[in-house]
Amino acid sequence: MTDSTVPTGADVLLHERDARGVHRLTLNQASTFNTLGEDMLHALQNALHQIAQDEHARVVVLAAAGKAFCAGHNLKEMRAQPEMAYYQKLFAQCTRMMLSIQNLPVPVIARVQGVATAAGCQLVAQCDLAVAAETARFGVNGIDVGLFCATPSVPLVRNMHAKQAMEMLLTGGFINAQEASQRGLINRVSPPEGLDAQVNEWVDSILSKPREAVRMGKALFYKQREMGIEAAYQLAGQTMACNMMHADAQEGVQAFIDKRSPAWRA
Amino acid sequence: MTDSTVPTGADVLLHERDARGVHRLTLNQASTFNTLGEDMLHALQNALHQIAQDEHARVVVLAAAGKAFCAGHNLKEMRAQPEMAYYQKLFAQCTRMMLSIQNLPVPVIARVQGVATAAGCQLVAQCDLAVAAETARFGVNGIDVGLFCATPSVPLVRNMHAKQAMEMLLTGGFINAQEASQRGLINRVSPPEGLDAQVNEWVDSILSKPREAVRMGKALFYKQREMGIEAAYQLAGQTMACNMMHADAQEGVQAFIDKRSPAWRA
Amino acid sequence: MTDSTVPTGADVLLHERDARGVHRLTLNQASTFNTLGEDMLHALQNALHQIAQDEHARVVVLAAAGKAFCAGHNLKEMRAQPEMAYYQKLFAQCTRMMLSIQNLPVPVIARVQGVATAAGCQLVAQCDLAVAAETARFGVNGIDVGLFCATPSVPLVRNMHAKQAMEMLLTGGFINAQEASQRGLINRVSPPEGLDAQVNEWVDSILSKPREAVRMGKALFYKQREMGIEAAYQLAGQTMACNMMHADAQEGVQAFIDKRSPAWRA
Repeated sequence: MTDSTVPTGADVLLHERDARGVHRLTLNQASTFNTLGEDMLHALQNALHQIAQDEHARVVVLAAAGKAFCAGHNLKEMRAQPEMAYYQKLFAQCTRMMLSIQNLPVPVIARVQGVATAAGCQLVAQCDLAVAAETARFGVNGIDVGLFCATPSVPLVRNMHAKQAMEMLLTGGFINAQEASQRGLINRVSPPEGLDAQVNEWVDSILSKPREAVRMGKALFYKQREMGIEAAYQLAGQTMACNMMHADAQEGVQAFIDKRSPAWRA
Repeated sequence: MTDSTVPTGADVLLHERDARGVHRLTLNQASTFNTLGEDMLHALQNALHQIAQDEHARVVVLAAAGKAFCAGHNLKEMRAQPEMAYYQKLFAQCTRMMLSIQNLPVPVIARVQGVATAAGCQLVAQCDLAVAAETARFGVNGIDVGLFCATPSVPLVRNMHAKQAMEMLLTGGFINAQEASQRGLINRVSPPEGLDAQVNEWVDSILSKPREAVRMGKALFYKQREMGIEAAYQLAGQTMACNMMHADAQEGVQAFIDKRSPAWRA
Repeated sequence: MTDSTVPTGADVLLHERDARGVHRLTLNQASTFNTLGEDMLHALQNALHQIAQDEHARVVVLAAAGKAFCAGHNLKEMRAQPEMAYYQKLFAQCTRMMLSIQNLPVPVIARVQGVATAAGCQLVAQCDLAVAAETARFGVNGIDVGLFCATPSVPLVRNMHAKQAMEMLLTGGFINAQEASQRGLINRVSPPEGLDAQVNEWVDSILSKPREAVRMGKALFYKQREMGIEAAYQLAGQTMACNMMHADAQEGVQAFIDKRSPAWRA
């Protein structure tokens, strides 16, 4: 991590947590379009690690300051160290951060207020839920500088159909928020001023469910997705039986029978 | 199976078969919104087993009586036996039934006249084809009672994009028939009074094809889907060669050459 | 290969190559609706082999002459040799050609001016990008002659949702270009007179990127898609590091930093 890339007097990543366990991460380097430089990757990894350790964390909102959401890797840093070992380490670091999002025990919501490019588009694809402003745009345009967006293609093709992903990867062309929603890359499109309302709706909804059921469910979802259907069902059935044995599920089901609101454990 | 849950004087599942080999199963416990209680699961498993044994079966229509299509598991039964072994057995029984739909040698059409919830939504996802009334709604809302819809997530994420499935699973939110169709969960939306016309169109179409080709094709479809593309092609090519050796295919191809209708074997 | 099926005085496949490395293949047997007879399969395999050997090839356009794009296998040939060994060899030959498209180091664009049926629809599905005339239609209707489109189902279910593919395979029903685009089977719909403009836009875009980055990216895309996400990321990161070490990527990134156009190697 080169200190010189850290803006003086400001954190590249803002990290807030409220009393409910809602973590809000804000990419905060508008001057670089929030590129995933080493400092930003490092800050994100640290924050995700802290959240993973927070037993009362419930949900993460990943937002960004400035006009762009995230412009992908920091090309200046990459150009400055033209060494295989450096690039391998850099992409391993980035991948570790991306997988940390999937492996987190709580959902991660992307709040996309502007353009998301290359690894920035990958970041959106890797989140569990995403809402974007109708003015946002999405591209995996590394190919424009001769660098095929290989790592972004991993979550991209797991979020939209193959030819749609391939066109973006080969041509570097952008899609707007409406197209991103129709293809499956994001869940919702919103006027810019409505982004927080959609995020808050999801946050409130997730807070109203038991943490443990969400944790088990998220982990199961991504694991079973990679399995054959018979093995997937076996794991899912086992997960559901464990979930059902939990005091929260017993209370939730009893509350349903009693036609009252459930009183989850604190 | 607790006899007490069976409504007096009525079968929880109606099973009709016509002379053409069309099996019609009707979930028939409108008072419980056709929940998949042990009795219903047992009745479905028995019916699917019988259909699998019926060498002249051609297609299955899965319909439901009353306002709801299916409200998922019977929560009262589940709450009454808070034991791990019981839950494991219950989900194994449900999974066995769901996989029986996929493993059946004939196509299964879901005729969805009303709301399909949790394992009820899973049932729709697991069928080969589905038409829903424009008033139908779909949700995997177990999370509302603290029970993440783990087993429903298995066919759900194999029928729509990941973020779309994740939003439904995490928030318990519903989608209408139009959204379900756009996402891939169902094939068609219809006015309620047009459901039978769509079902009959599919039934007539399937009846006009040779049974053996449909059987080989359905099995191949789900098997190859889980394989790498090279192995998938190898299996598909072998299947097609076997299919082509069948007398029906030889007749069908000859009829095409002769510009006449094929005369399949009885 | 039976010579008798080759039209006298005409090639079944036209193969042009321009100075830029753009290969244009044209299915040229309008009288048979460009069926994939042995001669056509053989010609396609030869052409793809030549392109794979052409170190300066950049992109392939797969077009067709006449009213239909491609009507699938040649049923007359198939009927004439009702032997298992023959069918196995035929489908292996077809599969080899289809996989050659995926394995080619350059992108393949389908220019679909008319109906694409059975293995003709498979051909479209197997290409990397596809544009179709708004009058084009797509079907996998082998089941109409008693032959389930098993091999076409392989790329079909990798390009659209399962129930959508299943409906086409079971009923033999066709979809129009608009539906094909919404489902993911093709990228774009165009008026017939606009097909070349869309093809040329893609060709020009691909020509403006470095060949090696496109080659590495295409291969990685299809390989990682079949892997679990962790292994996929590992391979993608390694690919990206190799790509970044390439002189073209170093030049591209430097040009980006310098705010000038990149000067790729010849």
